[in-house]
Amino acid sequence: MTVNFALLGAGRIGKVHAKAVSSNPNARLAAVADAFPDAAKAIAAQYGCAVKTIEEIEADKSIDAVVICTPTDTHADLIERFARAGRAIFCEKPIDLSIKRVQDCLKVVEKTKATLMVGFNRRFDPHFMGVKKAVDDGAVGTVEMVNITSRDPGPPPHDYITRSGGIFRDMTIHDFDMARFMLGEEPVAVSAHAAVLVDKKIGELGDFDSVNVLLETASGKQALISNSRRATYGYDQRVEVLGSKGMAAAENQRAISIEVANGTGYTRPPLLDFFMTRYTEAYANEIAAFIAALTSKKPASPSGRDGLLALALADAAVKSVKDGRKVKVAEVLG
Amino acid sequence: MTVNFALLGAGRIGKVHAKAVSSNPNARLAAVADAFPDAAKAIAAQYGCAVKTIEEIEADKSIDAVVICTPTDTHADLIERFARAGRAIFCEKPIDLSIKRVQDCLKVVEKTKATLMVGFNRRFDPHFMGVKKAVDDGAVGTVEMVNITSRDPGPPPHDYITRSGGIFRDMTIHDFDMARFMLGEEPVAVSAHAAVLVDKKIGELGDFDSVNVLLETASGKQALISNSRRATYGYDQRVEVLGSKGMAAAENQRAISIEVANGTGYTRPPLLDFFMTRYTEAYANEIAAFIAALTSKKPASPSGRDGLLALALADAAVKSVKDGRKVKVAEVLG
Amino acid sequence: MTVNFALLGAGRIGKVHAKAVSSNPNARLAAVADAFPDAAKAIAAQYGCAVKTIEEIEADKSIDAVVICTPTDTHADLIERFARAGRAIFCEKPIDLSIKRVQDCLKVVEKTKATLMVGFNRRFDPHFMGVKKAVDDGAVGTVEMVNITSRDPGPPPHDYITRSGGIFRDMTIHDFDMARFMLGEEPVAVSAHAAVLVDKKIGELGDFDSVNVLLETASGKQALISNSRRATYGYDQRVEVLGSKGMAAAENQRAISIEVANGTGYTRPPLLDFFMTRYTEAYANEIAAFIAALTSKKPASPSGRDGLLALALADAAVKSVKDGRKVKVAEVLG
Amino acid sequence: MTVNFALLGAGRIGKVHAKAVSSNPNARLAAVADAFPDAAKAIAAQYGCAVKTIEEIEADKSIDAVVICTPTDTHADLIERFARAGRAIFCEKPIDLSIKRVQDCLKVVEKTKATLMVGFNRRFDPHFMGVKKAVDDGAVGTVEMVNITSRDPGPPPHDYITRSGGIFRDMTIHDFDMARFMLGEEPVAVSAHAAVLVDKKIGELGDFDSVNVLLETASGKQALISNSRRATYGYDQRVEVLGSKGMAAAENQRAISIEVANGTGYTRPPLLDFFMTRYTEAYANEIAAFIAALTSKKPASPSGRDGLLALALADAAVKSVKDGRKVKVAEVLG
Repeated sequence: MTVNFALLGAGRIGKVHAKAVSSNPNARLAAVADAFPDAAKAIAAQYGCAVKTIEEIEADKSIDAVVICTPTDTHADLIERFARAGRAIFCEKPIDLSIKRVQDCLKVVEKTKATLMVGFNRRFDPHFMGVKKAVDDGAVGTVEMVNITSRDPGPPPHDYITRSGGIFRDMTIHDFDMARFMLGEEPVAVSAHAAVLVDKKIGELGDFDSVNVLLETASGKQALISNSRRATYGYDQRVEVLGSKGMAAAENQRAISIEVANGTGYTRPPLLDFFMTRYTEAYANEIAAFIAALTSKKPASPSGRDGLLALALADAAVKSVKDGRKVKVAEVLG
Repeated sequence: MTVNFALLGAGRIGKVHAKAVSSNPNARLAAVADAFPDAAKAIAAQYGCAVKTIEEIEADKSIDAVVICTPTDTHADLIERFARAGRAIFCEKPIDLSIKRVQDCLKVVEKTKATLMVGFNRRFDPHFMGVKKAVDDGAVGTVEMVNITSRDPGPPPHDYITRSGGIFRDMTIHDFDMARFMLGEEPVAVSAHAAVLVDKKIGELGDFDSVNVLLETASGKQALISNSRRATYGYDQRVEVLGSKGMAAAENQRAISIEVANGTGYTRPPLLDFFMTRYTEAYANEIAAFIAALTSKKPASPSGRDGLLALALADAAVKSVKDGRKVKVAEVLG
Repeated sequence: MTVNFALLGAGRIGKVHAKAVSSNPNARLAAVADAFPDAAKAIAAQYGCAVKTIEEIEADKSIDAVVICTPTDTHADLIERFARAGRAIFCEKPIDLSIKRVQDCLKVVEKTKATLMVGFNRRFDPHFMGVKKAVDDGAVGTVEMVNITSRDPGPPPHDYITRSGGIFRDMTIHDFDMARFMLGEEPVAVSAHAAVLVDKKIGELGDFDSVNVLLETASGKQALISNSRRATYGYDQRVEVLGSKGMAAAENQRAISIEVANGTGYTRPPLLDFFMTRYTEAYANEIAAFIAALTSKKPASPSGRDGLLALALADAAVKSVKDGRKVKVAEVLG
Repeated sequence: MTVNFALLGAGRIGKVHAKAVSSNPNARLAAVADAFPDAAKAIAAQYGCAVKTIEEIEADKSIDAVVICTPTDTHADLIERFARAGRAIFCEKPIDLSIKRVQDCLKVVEKTKATLMVGFNRRFDPHFMGVKKAVDDGAVGTVEMVNITSRDPGPPPHDYITRSGGIFRDMTIHDFDMARFMLGEEPVAVSAHAAVLVDKKIGELGDFDSVNVLLETASGKQALISNSRRATYGYDQRVEVLGSKGMAAAENQRAISIEVANGTGYTRPPLLDFFMTRYTEAYANEIAAFIAALTSKKPASPSGRDGLLALALADAAVKSVKDGRKVKVAEVLG
């Protein structure tokens, strides 16, 4: 079986998914849509697919699935639209910045029984998958604590900050999902500290650039997330799971594994410093998993609910910083 | 100049300090006191010093300094007594489990102008000293975040739990001191999560075995501390300092540095699993620093105030867990 | 400019090159030939190229370049044939197992001024390229010593042994090339020890499975090569360059970078254990370098002479083992 | 039982052994002799022992054992003298630079049934001991290959070179012993390459500064030794044992285990750069092993024969370089 795809949104991340779909033997990129015709045409030229409008894609019964890479504020509408049109949907995170909106959207998905997968790409990184597998195989015993260090090489542009929903909903959300993925039990409460240490302007825009978060589950399992928008040594992405029998940890990634030694010491190169380079394999695995779910008629994961719960943790963290207290996830889920 | 020492308390940690004093070319172990005569005699036999009572030591004008290794609830009394007797004092942490009592004690120390050093041995670990030096040398730029992972190989005996003051005052207190040491700015607020995951009995005794703490300073600098009373792979002691220009980190320690590779992978031995083995050099360096302070007439560090402030962070963490909110250090300092 | 390629030989390594050519934006796979029609057809189907005979390819003036992946004993003939036909040639190593035959072949290449590149893929491995770049950038000063550890996960099939030319010409030849690449000066003498330690049958077939080689250049620079046909922990591929100012080294590669810690220690996964997985990027870079040489009209490297000199070192090693003495490369070059 | 020691030779290495003897609970440093009275007096003052002449020590029946740290050309005479005087002998390597002289000396030792231990300190390094233990425990299966990289931080003074016996007898001799220790089977043949790359003056003095050696045993087991008199990054001391089931390796040592990361990469400090610092524990363990052998009446190891055989490998290496061929150990043993 070959799954026919349409790509909605031909920007940076759209290109990544276009490549992943085209390279997959069980999929075909049939159409692309973008508000900027040139962007769509470039994809079409490279992969030999048609440029279409959203409406045309919706009407084209030969399209089995859509990949939504449009701006965040269009995600929920598009999900609902294509769910109603009976298509499988892969949507980049987040579904929306409003929990209420996400909840409404997921009701439509549920009602239409549409397949929806949300783009938490890191679950598909081979190294994090390796840790998860070790955990599932019992290598660490009962999971007790998940420690995540996640630092960007540098802050995003200021105009991005203003529409990102803030660091918790934009950056930490990946770590919230990773914590949930590794904990194997739902976090129920959140404490967060937040500061502006990297760039004052970020503070003036109402956001933070350095945050730390504690999570706990009903049974007391713990997670820590440490974020900074600056790491001069590259894109620092570490996950560590402690359990009753041991610990499993994923190491950082470099472009080349060499070491130069001299009188000042032994030096290895800095880390990969761009999320697309760091997560190249994760993006490919992610789309492959979506396709595999469709062809095997199994549920796609991470699901819309995973998207909702990561957002809830972000909202709880925002509230925790504001109120200076531990916030229950139930408070923000309404 | 040779400093004449008396050792108060000839138990496990007393022996460590007796050896450190005896090995130091600028010091002499002159006397030892212990409620158990046999313990004192053993030290006396090994190092050729006299067994004396506390009173005799207090009266012996040839004694320049005392090392207090008696039970915690005697520390403050002994500090006051020997401060008034004009002696220099090295006291194992904590000064007392009550902030009020510590504050009163420090008033006596201040009034008598006695030299008091508190035993936060980890500041003298060569690896943590190396990180601190890198930080002081500007290798990481302005310090922004301190991440501490500190896990014991296994929980202490239950009867110890009951008189330890709880995990924050007993175990995390070392990490609070380390955070202060590395941050270079005083933490002003604390959020903590705590759980019983290792041993239910610890919970029944009113304590926790798995805790995580966030600290922040007035300017927003951040610290994270992650503690567990169990790590099957050894005594996990990591410190990492992130700054505007980079990161400095201390690695864990093993007894031997070998690696065995076969079909299951590359395996290095577990970590050193006992604090005395792990911190052998730290204990020696610590007493050497105390002696150096005395012979050079410079202030001893860490000071009584360092002891007080670490305890305050512990109390704030206790309160944070209890109240489910961020607690200001000022609240507990009264 | 687009380079039109024909692939000669559609076996395991032929498929690798077919993919590399097809993925390159400056190249097109136009034709494929193989003695087994099904093998050729499979490549043709996958990449949309024509199945042709060697004769047809030779006659087809639209073909700019050939990639020779046929059995070793056909390499020299095919190189001569396509050199005379005015085509650029990429040939898998070795050119031939006979030095005399290689020398005759290279005379034809020289006379016809054909472009010939020999497939020493490891020069294009990102990690070894990183070491080479560090060396060229002066990071180690004047090169003095090159230490190469190169171990296969397990021995090849017995029937392969008999036609491989022996371990020095089949396996060590890659290390001879790497030593030459890193030394930056021609080795002039070789001492080798060889043993059968892994599989007695290999000895019965007249070959060895465990060999060590010393090389030296005219100025005294040194190289060491250590080979084994068995490494239970994976494909062990290490290169280290020592110079007057320091050392540069390439580390081994794993599929995933994780570590699991427990009471038995810290364990990382075994190494990648298959040359095609280990050198995936090297193979792609190699063909890209060949295409770049063609489109930029620059000499292709490694050249036919590089192929000859690596073979000469292998022959010298064989002679060294046989005669129990240091053998000059000049002795075998005739 | 307490073993009474006399120290012969109060120089650099004599001080190391004086400290080791004095710290051992089963030993007492009773006397010290040195041609330079001040050197002997310094040791005597520090450890409270008597300054005596060689004759007085020989005559003093209360002395159980001597530690010989005098110049190399006096070793054999002193061993014979104290063997005849019925004392146990620990002698720094080498016994002598002449195989004939060593053989004659060992005949006296054998005849007198004296206990003789030779100072190959590296066998007592905890890391190499760890590798040896792993090998003995079967972790690597049948040993096939031992790879030793051993590089000094910098060359010794020129006047030392002239009396050292040359790099093979002075520096490589430790690696020859280590290879024998790890192989578990006697090497029977040696091939060596040698060059002057670090300091031309060393070449003018008739010695080399960069050498590589291959060893093989009767059953074909292999060893490689790679030496340089210069490593800008510290004292490089690596040992690796490959066997049928895996590999065991000892890592290099640093004074502190920290890492600093920034835009230029991740940097760990250089290695320990002085043999006394690098092998502090080895020296202490070595004397402890000698004392343990005496108090338990067990044979001391490494023995005089171990000293002889390491020297024979050195002589064979010298001959191999001179003759340009593989040299059998039997050729130099006479």
